[in-house]
Amino acid sequence: MSSLLEQLIEALRVLPGVGQKSAQRMAYHVLEREREGGKRLAETLAESIERIGHCARCRDFAETEICPICASAARDAHQLCAVESPADRLAIEQATGYRGLYFVLQGRLSPLDGVGPNELGLDKLAARLAEGEVKELIIATNPTVEGEATAHYLAQLARKHGVRPSRLAHGVPLGGELEYVDRGTLSHAFGSRTEMPS
Amino acid sequence: MSSLLEQLIEALRVLPGVGQKSAQRMAYHVLEREREGGKRLAETLAESIERIGHCARCRDFAETEICPICASAARDAHQLCAVESPADRLAIEQATGYRGLYFVLQGRLSPLDGVGPNELGLDKLAARLAEGEVKELIIATNPTVEGEATAHYLAQLARKHGVRPSRLAHGVPLGGELEYVDRGTLSHAFGSRTEMPS
Ligand SMILES: [Zn+2]
Ligand SMILES: [Zn+2]
Repeated sequence: MSSLLEQLIEALRVLPGVGQKSAQRMAYHVLEREREGGKRLAETLAESIERIGHCARCRDFAETEICPICASAARDAHQLCAVESPADRLAIEQATGYRGLYFVLQGRLSPLDGVGPNELGLDKLAARLAEGEVKELIIATNPTVEGEATAHYLAQLARKHGVRPSRLAHGVPLGGELEYVDRGTLSHAFGSRTEMPS
Repeated sequence: MSSLLEQLIEALRVLPGVGQKSAQRMAYHVLEREREGGKRLAETLAESIERIGHCARCRDFAETEICPICASAARDAHQLCAVESPADRLAIEQATGYRGLYFVLQGRLSPLDGVGPNELGLDKLAARLAEGEVKELIIATNPTVEGEATAHYLAQLARKHGVRPSRLAHGVPLGGELEYVDRGTLSHAFGSRTEMPS
């Protein structure tokens, strides 16, 4: 049986980018100097895992059935922005002045990994577009091969329901991850989004 | 009131080297892909903070009153190695073939920060040296200004009790932190430790 300290170091490695050495440093740091903060982290983490699910409307993380953005009357329901992940949604929300709504795919089309339209909730998105309120679908998937394939699929889906598809303007570096693009570039790219050609 | 997700991101920043951006990435990663691992982390962290204290004999982290190393009959009680932190103790234990015992200072002398002999448990160390069993005090403080000052203080304390003080050989880079020295260098430096001049 490994010691509790060893178990803690091992458990910390669940965090992205944390190897053996930094997990060890984190465990020691918390036990030496941050017991209060560590306790708060343990509680908040347990509560988050217990209580944070997905918004029934946009699939973003939410503590409630409908997230605050979807529930807000101040947002423009004519615009819907499709993103791959909650982090991308947050990046756009923080960097741009966008006041429409979002749809979080929680992934991108990747047939080899078994990720098809159903896994991305596209049946739900189709139903949403069919409601008729959305006029523009802003497609903000990442500029990767799979992100582009997803964008094309989404554009077709939009047109099928008479919704105008648009794509973020060039400016996001090719092969880059939206989440790590600086705010200025992202804001510019968002503002200069162009209609997608058929 | 900030959302639970925002609270989680904030709480993660208690970990060393974790800023806003990586805390965010960690929170999303756990919620998206590692809920089981995150739950285990929350539980282990809470339990560790609750149950891990300090060994009554060496001051290292321990779940029990006396840590396994201090309690082991297989270790050589004639040698005592003084280190600044539990991480340094672990580094020596992993890199060298040392079979003696340890004393963890949990700091270094730093009068300006109010860290004097009492804060480092030197009264306890003196009592230990007075017992007569320890023949050599291996001083493995870091080669920093404060670490060197601490080493000199410890060497005097050792001599006062008829114990031979020794210091890790040169090889540990000046100004470097023991914890980050590669195993080979640390093992060599440990093996070539020299007696401290008066
Ligand atoms: Zn929502
Ligand atoms: Zn001990």
